[in-house]
Parts: sequence; structure tokens; C-alpha cells
Amino acid sequence: MDKVLKNINVDSFINEITPQLIQWRRSFHSYPEVGWTEYVTTYRIMRVLEKLNFTLHIGEDAYSSVDRIGVPDEAILCQAEQSALKAGVLEEWIEKMAGGHTGLVATWDSGKRGKHIALRFDIDALPIEESMDIEHFPWKNDFRSVNQGTMHACGHDGHIATGLGVAHFIAEHSDVLTGKYTLFFQPAEEGGRGAFAMSKRGWLDDVTEFLSGHIGINPLNIGTVAATTTKFLASTKIDITYKGRSAHAGIDPEKGRNALLACAAATMHLQGITRNSGGATRINIGKINAGSGRNIVADLGRLEVETRGETDVLNDYMFEEAKRIINASGKLYDVQVHMDVVGHATDITCDEEWIDYTKEVCKDSKTITNVLSESALGGSEDVTYLMKEVQKNGGKVTYFIFGTPLANGHHHPAFDFDEKVLPIAVELYARMIVSLNMGAK
Amino acid sequence: MDKVLKNINVDSFINEITPQLIQWRRSFHSYPEVGWTEYVTTYRIMRVLEKLNFTLHIGEDAYSSVDRIGVPDEAILCQAEQSALKAGVLEEWIEKMAGGHTGLVATWDSGKRGKHIALRFDIDALPIEESMDIEHFPWKNDFRSVNQGTMHACGHDGHIATGLGVAHFIAEHSDVLTGKYTLFFQPAEEGGRGAFAMSKRGWLDDVTEFLSGHIGINPLNIGTVAATTTKFLASTKIDITYKGRSAHAGIDPEKGRNALLACAAATMHLQGITRNSGGATRINIGKINAGSGRNIVADLGRLEVETRGETDVLNDYMFEEAKRIINASGKLYDVQVHMDVVGHATDITCDEEWIDYTKEVCKDSKTITNVLSESALGGSEDVTYLMKEVQKNGGKVTYFIFGTPLANGHHHPAFDFDEKVLPIAVELYARMIVSLNMGAK
Amino acid sequence: MDKVLKNINVDSFINEITPQLIQWRRSFHSYPEVGWTEYVTTYRIMRVLEKLNFTLHIGEDAYSSVDRIGVPDEAILCQAEQSALKAGVLEEWIEKMAGGHTGLVATWDSGKRGKHIALRFDIDALPIEESMDIEHFPWKNDFRSVNQGTMHACGHDGHIATGLGVAHFIAEHSDVLTGKYTLFFQPAEEGGRGAFAMSKRGWLDDVTEFLSGHIGINPLNIGTVAATTTKFLASTKIDITYKGRSAHAGIDPEKGRNALLACAAATMHLQGITRNSGGATRINIGKINAGSGRNIVADLGRLEVETRGETDVLNDYMFEEAKRIINASGKLYDVQVHMDVVGHATDITCDEEWIDYTKEVCKDSKTITNVLSESALGGSEDVTYLMKEVQKNGGKVTYFIFGTPLANGHHHPAFDFDEKVLPIAVELYARMIVSLNMGAK
Amino acid sequence: MDKVLKNINVDSFINEITPQLIQWRRSFHSYPEVGWTEYVTTYRIMRVLEKLNFTLHIGEDAYSSVDRIGVPDEAILCQAEQSALKAGVLEEWIEKMAGGHTGLVATWDSGKRGKHIALRFDIDALPIEESMDIEHFPWKNDFRSVNQGTMHACGHDGHIATGLGVAHFIAEHSDVLTGKYTLFFQPAEEGGRGAFAMSKRGWLDDVTEFLSGHIGINPLNIGTVAATTTKFLASTKIDITYKGRSAHAGIDPEKGRNALLACAAATMHLQGITRNSGGATRINIGKINAGSGRNIVADLGRLEVETRGETDVLNDYMFEEAKRIINASGKLYDVQVHMDVVGHATDITCDEEWIDYTKEVCKDSKTITNVLSESALGGSEDVTYLMKEVQKNGGKVTYFIFGTPLANGHHHPAFDFDEKVLPIAVELYARMIVSLNMGAK
Repeated sequence: MDKVLKNINVDSFINEITPQLIQWRRSFHSYPEVGWTEYVTTYRIMRVLEKLNFTLHIGEDAYSSVDRIGVPDEAILCQAEQSALKAGVLEEWIEKMAGGHTGLVATWDSGKRGKHIALRFDIDALPIEESMDIEHFPWKNDFRSVNQGTMHACGHDGHIATGLGVAHFIAEHSDVLTGKYTLFFQPAEEGGRGAFAMSKRGWLDDVTEFLSGHIGINPLNIGTVAATTTKFLASTKIDITYKGRSAHAGIDPEKGRNALLACAAATMHLQGITRNSGGATRINIGKINAGSGRNIVADLGRLEVETRGETDVLNDYMFEEAKRIINASGKLYDVQVHMDVVGHATDITCDEEWIDYTKEVCKDSKTITNVLSESALGGSEDVTYLMKEVQKNGGKVTYFIFGTPLANGHHHPAFDFDEKVLPIAVELYARMIVSLNMGAK
Repeated sequence: MDKVLKNINVDSFINEITPQLIQWRRSFHSYPEVGWTEYVTTYRIMRVLEKLNFTLHIGEDAYSSVDRIGVPDEAILCQAEQSALKAGVLEEWIEKMAGGHTGLVATWDSGKRGKHIALRFDIDALPIEESMDIEHFPWKNDFRSVNQGTMHACGHDGHIATGLGVAHFIAEHSDVLTGKYTLFFQPAEEGGRGAFAMSKRGWLDDVTEFLSGHIGINPLNIGTVAATTTKFLASTKIDITYKGRSAHAGIDPEKGRNALLACAAATMHLQGITRNSGGATRINIGKINAGSGRNIVADLGRLEVETRGETDVLNDYMFEEAKRIINASGKLYDVQVHMDVVGHATDITCDEEWIDYTKEVCKDSKTITNVLSESALGGSEDVTYLMKEVQKNGGKVTYFIFGTPLANGHHHPAFDFDEKVLPIAVELYARMIVSLNMGAK
Repeated sequence: MDKVLKNINVDSFINEITPQLIQWRRSFHSYPEVGWTEYVTTYRIMRVLEKLNFTLHIGEDAYSSVDRIGVPDEAILCQAEQSALKAGVLEEWIEKMAGGHTGLVATWDSGKRGKHIALRFDIDALPIEESMDIEHFPWKNDFRSVNQGTMHACGHDGHIATGLGVAHFIAEHSDVLTGKYTLFFQPAEEGGRGAFAMSKRGWLDDVTEFLSGHIGINPLNIGTVAATTTKFLASTKIDITYKGRSAHAGIDPEKGRNALLACAAATMHLQGITRNSGGATRINIGKINAGSGRNIVADLGRLEVETRGETDVLNDYMFEEAKRIINASGKLYDVQVHMDVVGHATDITCDEEWIDYTKEVCKDSKTITNVLSESALGGSEDVTYLMKEVQKNGGKVTYFIFGTPLANGHHHPAFDFDEKVLPIAVELYARMIVSLNMGAK
Repeated sequence: MDKVLKNINVDSFINEITPQLIQWRRSFHSYPEVGWTEYVTTYRIMRVLEKLNFTLHIGEDAYSSVDRIGVPDEAILCQAEQSALKAGVLEEWIEKMAGGHTGLVATWDSGKRGKHIALRFDIDALPIEESMDIEHFPWKNDFRSVNQGTMHACGHDGHIATGLGVAHFIAEHSDVLTGKYTLFFQPAEEGGRGAFAMSKRGWLDDVTEFLSGHIGINPLNIGTVAATTTKFLASTKIDITYKGRSAHAGIDPEKGRNALLACAAATMHLQGITRNSGGATRINIGKINAGSGRNIVADLGRLEVETRGETDVLNDYMFEEAKRIINASGKLYDVQVHMDVVGHATDITCDEEWIDYTKEVCKDSKTITNVLSESALGGSEDVTYLMKEVQKNGGKVTYFIFGTPLANGHHHPAFDFDEKVLPIAVELYARMIVSLNMGAK
């Protein structure tokens, strides 16, 4: 180990790349795109990676197209493609990604025996209008979202920057590294829509180690990381449409079948699903759009809903309750019910051996000063589908938490993290790669 | 009477203009525009009227701009103006109407002593997606709406055609008619938003007779009209915004303040306002838009609501109940409440003398075969503000119902009426004009 | 007429009986009994009538026992029978009325040709705790209810007194009166439970005139009566039971099936049934009893509900909506639903000829100073079943309103009327009898 | 230890007393009484203990009367006292317990130096109608509840039997035992109403060890016990009264202020309180009684509610949310709100040293074959107030779980446990006493 490692000075690599990490992060932050519309984001990632020695698999090459979940309407995709064109994406690339085939997989094989390490970075943003509060860091520093109503409010901009940093680390050390590398730049993590399709493409068949992670989540200091993560909430994402009959609200309201009332009823009753003594559950009715005008009995209503549970069993409990309530709410108001499952995430248990391994790997780091055995996610992640696939094939998986103070919680319009977490995340992945694939351990 | 009337052959005028009425109706039907965005509609009306001998008062000249209610956002107006430009409206006219100053008033003074007759025709459409059912008459006959999500589903296309027919009648008989004439082509009747501003401009100060009306409403045959209308529902239109705080629905939902739940709660409780033994009341929650994404606790929710009552007292009861419920629903979920009144209509009683008068005027008509004393509207009409203003000044007012079978009720996506009602409406107005202003009575 | 009428001085009869009317009213007021438990009330009525020359038909003799609706549980009947025993009702009479066979029919046949006049007086009270407000007249004057939780809050105490006054009038003039007389002292009017059974016993086969009425209802002065009544609301009374499964609310709440939540859901959605443009409707959820203890998931819930409509068609609309909502609310919470119809009332139209007739009959009254053509009930009355039966057989029916100021509205804990209305009600019935059966008209 | 322990043969004591334990259990099972009405239960316990050498402190002597929470109405207490008289409780004893002063504390001081061991057994039942299912063990074996609507559905009948068994153990070994003993036979555990008052009476000032426990809870086999218990849910018990105004539901419903609708609204919104990522929470609306009759707008409604949380902080979150919702629900329907806290429980952490200690103490038991380190309660227990008081004074506390299969969960109408758990519970307490107070350890 010693000899080889002399050739790899992680610290100096990190020092050098840090300004670039911050620049990437801000650039991606300023152009957020929601799931399956990450045309510009994917293009920019591709532009960086094509200069390195990776093989790139874009869109349909990267995953099973039919297994994508929750792909937006043609109209929304079309609009996003137009915007991407205006933003400078070359037409041939837009054609390649057409129909919401965003995201990519980057692979590199050293040709030498070693571990096959897979890493996953998610790249999508959220439908949130970013804060213009004077104290909001991206606003003060001129990299607030230029896309109205869309925001990187979950830190995926930081994840992309981390992924590009890791790619650079691999590229710069390609002469000394052994084994194989697969980097997933995954679209549509929000809503649990992208990972499943990526897990169905064979990328993971011989992966021996799978690493991923998230910045923030819990109130941890810079320099603290968690070696494993618990409490991945299994989740099901449901779109509901109620279809009734419109009528004049003054002249003959009794002739209507009110789809808006069905939406409100379903909302109230879903929110009231009884807690389960088996563990944590969640329900969120995130969106209602119902009715066409004030003086018309609403003939159409749409809901976006998600259930979660600490285990698949608990999420199933929530989903079964939800299904019954959704159907009965249609009956209450005599309207038709249409229900689509448009996303899901499963539960997962990280392999325990990562706890001691991570502590060992980081023990002489100057910046990673505290390695927790575990930290709780409390949210859902469809990376769990990739992780389950790896475990099925005998590989070992973990998911790190990278500590950083947060200006506001995830999904808040003024969400923000400390950019010092970026070099720390790259360092942890780099140390893992060195340790796993250079006989360091 | 006899001598003069010989010069006026109403029947032959009606026969001649009927094909034109139908053509107008279909043309306006195919290009529906919602309240305060009737740029193309107003322009086309203006183009017809400018060839006749009326003085035209467009937009700000026609009403008190500050008294307009429920004018849409700048963005929506801007979009409508762009569309109008594409649809061929000259730029100078768009500038004249800029900022939602649609609609017009057409006046003509014979210079001879006589009655001052005012007539009102409403011109706006509804935010309803028009049916593509194979049996839907406008679809079968190629004049379905070209504006997605917008439809003439209340018959105002027919009202415009009627108004233009009446204008032609006046113009063609300008040599023999006495008195003065004011024709209101009113924007934004839906939602009770346009008439109030028009009532504040002095047009009605010396009006002696005010006539308006509606096609359809009740299941009456072609040839049946009602001389007066009862059961004008007073109404208040309310926009509600709930503002809470977003949070990640999985990681820390308890940090959110859920504006979507406040919307659902307000909806359920508003819908349940206790019936009033004093007479008919209505409540409609016509539209909900809440939440930004499935996995985000919603920080914003908007409702469009209306109350109605058979009298102002009954509507006040509904409105007071609604206000309390709207505020308390905010408290339920600890979110801020903002409430705007964006429209209203008052009650009215037509003057009784019109009953016998109308029967007399129509007694020798070949097409108006049945004059009912009264018919119930059961809806709201902001023409009531114009009517109250006339009554205040000592004038007499009525509101006709023009019988026609309806394919489906008002505000239904497949609403349609029998176009034979159009010449009948013009004939009734024409007979009234002749009778009032030519010594016929 | 003159000669006979000389023998009948209505005014002096009324003057003499007035103090007795007030005494009866207060006595019945102080001992209120709810529907089908009017043991003491029936007994006291019987005691008065048995001294006159009527034939009395108690309980099962008075109506079709199986057609009774909403008879209380055996336990409640048993308790009421025990109370009656303590209140001095002889055991043989309790046996005669056992099982909730309260109420009676009193008949008398003059043996002379004439009209068969039927009159109906309802006798039951309400489950309301009577006010102890210092200003409440029955409390100030020591005749407040002695039965906790029960109150004559609808004026039936006054109706009984009126009925006994009318019986006295007939008895005292039996020598001069012609025709036949049937007086219904009807149990269980509240909830629409008693009249139907009485209508099925043949009493009405040859009735030529049917009279009934109500004191109060609308704000009319003493001396004002209405000759006919409109707006009888058809009504259906529904008992609902939801049956779920109990569970420990802390340890494993998810194992429960919550019947209490089904009750709350049904309540909210029933209350929100859309208004009908066809006319007045009502919905009331009058009572909920659900759950057995705070820390137990409720396995049982009961609701008492009623729908009403200005016509049978409107009530049917409400009832059909209610049925669907009641069933769907069970599905929402996965609990069993049981629904019983326990009462109903139909609509009715009084015969028009009573308007002129009543005005004529009262024209020389010193106390009945104002006879309205009609007044609106706005409530439900199962007397409508008796009235429909009479109309079916060719008889003529009406229902009077006897004007009186009210301290508070019907069914209010401090409801009270002006006792001056009692002699007026007796006088109107007496004048009708004289007029109908003595050739007076 | 050896010498002394020879004199104490726990196994043979247990063998001998087992039939008596079962008999006690069945006897108490057949006469269940809810909190603060355990007159017969307390009396029977007293009758057993007075034959042993304990000093008995009944009712007011046992606790701080004013600190009792959720004492029922005078009327309910009166009725319970009458029933107790009929069940053979001597009048002097009823007087002693009058006003709901049930429960007792039994103390004994060996006079020799040693530990002061306190034990607590709860004695109250639940307002549940016991099953008559043919398979229900108490029904098959003739000891089903004789008190309609009341049931020992949480195993407190077994706890009483256990307590009496422990008392016998102490009494029979009074010659060899050292230290002091305080046995709490606590009333009103359900609803968290009795322990607080007992904690305020000085009994715990010098207690060195506090032991309590529960049979059942989790699916553990006979022979398995848990040395400590986790997940005591802090809890607040709330009674809510809404006061509105009654009105006739047909004639003038708009005059009412509907307290029943406020109950239903509060229910729906309380049930929907957002889950908290900090840990387990609960909400239960256990009981609604609202309205007086079907055709009356309800003027009164009552709710029994409880919140819970895995920690005091989480329960506070629930309680604060609940308060806001309860108040806002009153505003929704314009009714007055009255809220009483009628019970509470706090969280607690058992002292860790009990884990090893219990394993050691039980290691040679033939029946206690499996000692778990911990088991989760998942419910609330007001014994936590006694435990906190002991910890405050430096004593050590634990709470055992005694494993037994359950026919159905706690608070289910067919709840039942395996009576073999009774001798095991007595044995564990006996072994603890021997070990703590005889130098055994």
C-alpha cells in the first residue's frame, strides 16, 4: 500500500479541486430542472465527463426506458426541450435525450483486477420557487435559480459537483487505480422515479461495492460524516384524478358531480390515516388542482400524494389505507376515480461492515474529524432499488450522510448548505476508492 | 302608430338578418375569451358597429377603470394581448384596451324627443374546455372553441349576436326612430366583475327604460319568452390565499405549516354552511390550487369561492358564515389567511308593468307565441347593478328570458342552444324599441 | 242558521273556558314525554275526555300497531312505564298502553246528517333540557318540566289544551250539532312517527273535512291566523350504526376499525350535500354517540339524521345523496354500515277553498282580526299522511297557523308562546264546526 | 445468603398460591369497575390484606385528594356507591371511600435495616362491553363481567391478583425479610388519572427500589419477561365541550349554532395532526356525545381525546397542535369551547442496571426461562409519575413485561391472557424481594 499511496495524495487533490467544486455547484444551482427534464443538467455533466476517460451512456442507453416512472406529459417535455435549446444545448443532444431520456451512466475499466465500485449522484431539482430573502446565500451571491418555480432545494446541485469531483479523481489517478467504476448521474430521484429504471439495465451485475450519500439531512457539523444510514422510508407515489360533471353553480348545482369536493374529502381522510405502532409512517398530499372556474361545479380534480413507511410492510399499510380512502372518496361524491402509481422507493439496510471500515479509512483525515456509525434518513430514496440489486448479487452497499449546517430544511424555499461539505464528500469517496482498489486495506 | 309602423316591418328585418345572426354567433363562439381579456371579441364588435351610426366608447371611456373587479394578473393580460395581436387585432386597438380595458358602450341620439332606452349584452366566456363529443353541435359544425380551456358555455356568444342585430335594427331605422339609445357590450359578467364599473360612469342618469335578458336558463320552448325575471341571486366572489411554510414531507413534516390542508378544510366547512329558511342560498368552491410538489408540505394554497342568496340579506348570511369559516380554517392549520372580494352581484326586482306591456307588444308576433309573466333566473347577474342604478334614477327595468331547448345546462362542456332563439331575441328588443319610441303605445 | 246559532254563543264559551285552557297547557307542559312514551299525557287526556260524550280508542285500538315508526327500545319504554306508575297512572291503563301504545282517538256521532269533521292534535315533547333562565316564563311561573332532559319546546302542550277545548265545545253543543267528529290525539309527531299508523286504521274513510294546525312557526301577532299552510317539508328520518373494531389507542391503534371517525366523516359530508335549485331542502345530523372510552379505538358509532325537501322529489334527492354518503363513509374507514329509516313525512297542498271560507267564517270575530291566505311551515309534519288519506277519499283538508309571538324559536330550550293564542285556536275550530255542521254557511 | 434463603423456598410458595391467584383473578374480572369507582374492588383487596400484617391506607389517606385527575361526576359516583352497597360492601367502608376515594396503599416495615421496596399494581377496568363470543374464555368459564358495559380488558385483574400474591409472600416471610415495603393498589390508571395523586403523598421519599410491570403488551411466550421497558408514551387526556345554540332543524336551522358539527370538525382535524419525525406520536378521539334529538340543531357536544408521544417533547407537540385545532373548530361553527385536561402520563427511562440484575436473579428459575433486556410498551402509564418521583429521590426504578399470549389485544372486547403468567409475575417480584432484602445479592 505505502508505495502506491505515495503516488496518491488525496489531500492535495482535494485542495486543488475545491474552487471548481464550488463553481460547479453554483452553476448547476442556477439552472435547476425537475425530474426527467434535466436536459441542460445532463448536457453539462456530459460536457465535463467527455474530457475525462469515461465511456458515457446517455438516456436510453443508461436505463430501461419503459421502467421509468412518472415521466411528465409530452407538453412539459417539449417545453423543457425548447428551453434547453435556448440554453445552448446542441440539437443533436436534445434529440438523443428526447422524450425525457435525461441522466447518464459513466463507466471506466482499469483493465486490472480489482473491485467494481459503483457510485450514484442524483441530479434533479424541485418545483419550488426559490427565496429572494436578502439573507438567502444563492440570492446574495447571484446564483439563484433562473428557472421560475424550480429550485435545487435538496442539495442535488452539491451531489452533481461531488460526482464530477470523484470522476476527476478517478481520471487523474487512472494509471494507478485497479478495478472497475460505474458512476450513475441519476435523473428523477425526487418522487422515486429514476433509480428503478437504472437498476434494470445490468450495470450492477458484478458490482462489489456500492456507495452513495446525501449532504445535510440531520444537524451535523462540517467534518462529521455517517458511515451508514438507517430509516430509509419505503414510499409509494400516487396520482389521483377524480372526474365528475360540471354544472352552473347558481342555476342547477344539483346536476353537477363535484370532483373538487372529492379531492378535499380524500385529502382530509388521507391525512387522518391512523398511526401504526410498528414504526414511522408518513402521508403527504402535496398538490391539489381542481375546478375550472368559480361559478362552475368542478368536473375535474387532481391530487399528488405519497405514502411512506419505515419498512415496506409499513408503507404497504399506508398504501392500502390510502387506496381504500381514495376510492371511497370518489363514491362520497359520485365521481369517477383514476389512480396511478407514479413512483416508489423501497427500504434498505446498509451492510454493517462499512461502519468500522469507514472509521478506519478516515482515521488520518484532517477534515473528516468525526465518523458516526449511523445516522437516520427519515426520508425516501429510490437509490434503494440500486442498493437492493447490488445486495442481491452479493455486493456490499452503504449510504453516507455528509454533515453540514443548513440555513433551512430540505425542500424549503431558502434551503442552503455550507459549501465546505463538498470537498469532504469528494474526499470520503476518494479515500474509499483508494482503500478498496489499491490494496490499501 | 299605424303610419309610422308601416315604415317599420320588423318581420322582414328579422328574416333578412337571421343568417347573419347565426354567422356572428358561430364566429364569436369559436373565439371565446374570459372576463377582462375580450380583446378580440371587443375588436370584432367594434368593427361591426363602426359601420353603423353609433358613437363608440371603448375600455376606459366606457366605465370607471378603478371600479373594475377581479381583473386578472398582468401576465395573463399580456398573454391575451399577444394572442389578440396574432389573431389580427391592430396594435393601436390593443393599446387602447391595454390592461384589461375590454368591452364597449355604443350610443346614438336621434335628436328627437323620446325615451332613452338602454340595452345590455354580455360578451365574456368561461374557463371550460369545450366538448369534443361527436354530437356536440359546435364541434360537428366546425365552430368549436379554438382557445384551449375556454368556451362560450353560457350563451354570451348568442347575446353578442343579438346585440349586433339590435344595433343594426336601430341603424336601419334611424330616420324614423325617436329618443336615445345606449348599448352596453359588457365584459366580465361571469364572476360579477364588469357591470359595477359600467354603472359608475353616468350612462344611466337619464335612462327611462333598461332592457336586458338571457337565452336558455329554464326549459322553455322556442317562441316562449318571459316578460320579467325573478330570483336574481345576490352574490359575492371571494379569492382566498393560505400561506404556510414548506418542509420535506418525509424528513421533518412537522416543521411545515400546511396550506393545502387549510384549503381542504375550508372547502369542506364552506360546503356545509347551514341552509337558511329565508330562501335560496348557494355556495361554490370552484377552484383549488395548492401545493408545489408531492413530497413537499404545501406552503401555498388558493381557493376561488362564491356565495349567493335569493336576496342581499341571504347572501350576507352566506358571506358572513364564509368569512368566519375561512379565517378559522387558517387557524386550524396555523397558516396565514388572505381574502379578497373580487366580484359581486346584487338582487333586483323587475318592474311589474313590463308584464302586461310585453304581452301587448308581442300579441301579433308570429314567432313569439307565448309570453310568460315571469321566469326564475336562479343565478346571479351583475346587470343588477345597472338595473338598480336605473331604478334609482326613476327608470323602469326588466330582464327577459328567451326560451330555447338546451343540449346541456349552462356551464356544461357540451352546453348548446337552438339558434332559432337569436331572431326571436332581436325581434323582442326591436318590438320594444318601436313601441317605446314610436308612439306605438 | 240564525236560529240555531243563537243557541251557540262561541264568544261566551271561549271566555269561560280560557282559564281552563291555560291550566291544561301548564299541566301538560310540566310533564313532557317524548314520542311513544306519552303514557301520563295520554292518561290525562283520557281522564278529561271520558267525562264528555266521546267514544275513546286507546293505543292499539287507535292505529295500526305495526305501522308505528321509530318506537324506542324496550328498556326506554319500560322506564317510562315505571315513571308513569309513579306519576299515578293506574296499572290497568299502563297495561293497555304497554309497549309504546300511547295516544288516542276520540269519536262522536251526532246521529244527524252532516259533515264528518276530523281534527288532529299532537301530544309529544322533545329531548331538550328546559331553560332555567330567570326570564323563562314556565320557570318563573313554576310549570317548568319535571322530567329532566325533556321539554315541550314545540308548543304541543298548547295543542293538547286546544284539543281538549274543542272537545268541550262539541260536548257542550251536542244537542245542536249535526254530523260526525273524530279527534286524533296523536303521539310521536316529532320525527314523523305517529301519523302514518293512524292513517292506516280507516278513521278517515268518509271524513269530509280535516282540520289541524300549529301555533307559532312564523312571527305573527296574536289575532292573526293563516287559513292554509304551504311549504310542508317532506322528510325522511334515518338511524345509522357504524360497527368497527376496538383496539388500544396507544399500543396498536392500527388494528382498530374506527367507527367514530366514520361518524364524523358522514357528518361532514352529509352536511355538505349540494343545495338543489328546485326548492328548499334540509339536512340535520341531530345526534352522534360514538366510542366507549378515551383510550380505545371506537368500535361503535350511532347517528340520528333527517333529510327534508319542499316536495317529495326534493326530499328524495336529499335521501339518495345521504344514502350514498352514509355508505361511502363506512368504506372510508372500513367499518360496517347499518341504516334504518325510522320516520318520514310527505308533502301536501291544502285545498284552496279554505282561504275564502276561513275569511268568511272569521269575519265577525272580535279576536281573530287578521286571516292570512297562507303562511309557510318550513318544517315537516306527519299530519300530511292523514291529510293525503283524506284527499284521496275526496275530503278537503287544511292546516292553520295560529299567530303568537315566541320568546325563542321552536326547539329552543327557552321556547315559549303567548297563552292568548289558545282561546283563539279553539275559537277558530269552533267557528269552523258551527259553520260546517249547522248550515251556518 | 444461603442460610437465609434456605428458609425461603420461592418455588413451593408459588406452587401453593397459584390456584388462589387464578381464583382472585377471576373474581376481580367478574366485577370490573372503571377509574375512581373501584369501591368493590378496593374493598375486596382490603379484606384480603387486613388478614396479613400490613398497615392499610384507604382513599384520602393514600393520596392527595385534590391531585386526583378526571374524577367522574357526582351522579356516577353515587350510582357506583349504590351498586357497591348492593354488592355487599359495608356502609362504613363506602363512607370512607365516598366521592371516588378508591384504591389503597399497604405498608409494612420489618424494623430491620434494608431496602425500601415499592411495588405498584393498578386495579381499574375499562368502559367496554365484554364479548359473549362462545370462544371467549371468561364467558366459557363463567367469570364474564356482571357489570354491563365495563370490562377488565387490559389485564388489571391479573395485576391485582399478582399484588395480593406478593403481599402474601411478604407476610409469610415477615420473619426473615429486612427493609420496608410499600404496595400501591392504584385506582384510575386508565386515562392517566390516579398515579399523580399517589406520587404527591410522601410514600416515595426514601424508596430505594421501585418495581411495577404489565402482563401481555407484546407477543411473548409464557416464561419470557423483560427486565426493563422502553417507549412509555407521554400522554395528555383532554375533555372538550362545545356549547352552541339549538334551533328547529326544519323551520329555522340558520338560527342554531351547531355544536355537533364542531365535534365532527375537531375530530377530523385532530385525527390529521401531522406525524412528527422525532418519534412515535398518537392521537385518539375516543368518544363523542353530541346533540339531543334528530330534528334539533345540536347545542351541546362533548369529546374525549388523548394525545401521546414517545417523549414529553413529542407529546407536547401533539398537545399544542390539538389545542389550536380544538379552539379553531369552535370558531368554525361559532360555538363556545371549553377544554379540560383530565389526565396525563409522562415519559420515563428505566434504570439500566436492572437488566443484568434481573437476568442474574432469574438465572436458576425453572419457569422464567427467558429474560429480555427490554421490551417496548408503546402505550402510556401514569406509573411514570411514581417512577420519576423515586428517581428524583435517588432510587432505582424498573417496569417489567410479563410475557403471555393474548386472545386479542388490550382494550378489545375479547381480550384475554394465559393465566399461567400470574405465578410467573409473582415469582419475579418475590425473587427481587429476596435478592434485594436478604443479602442474596
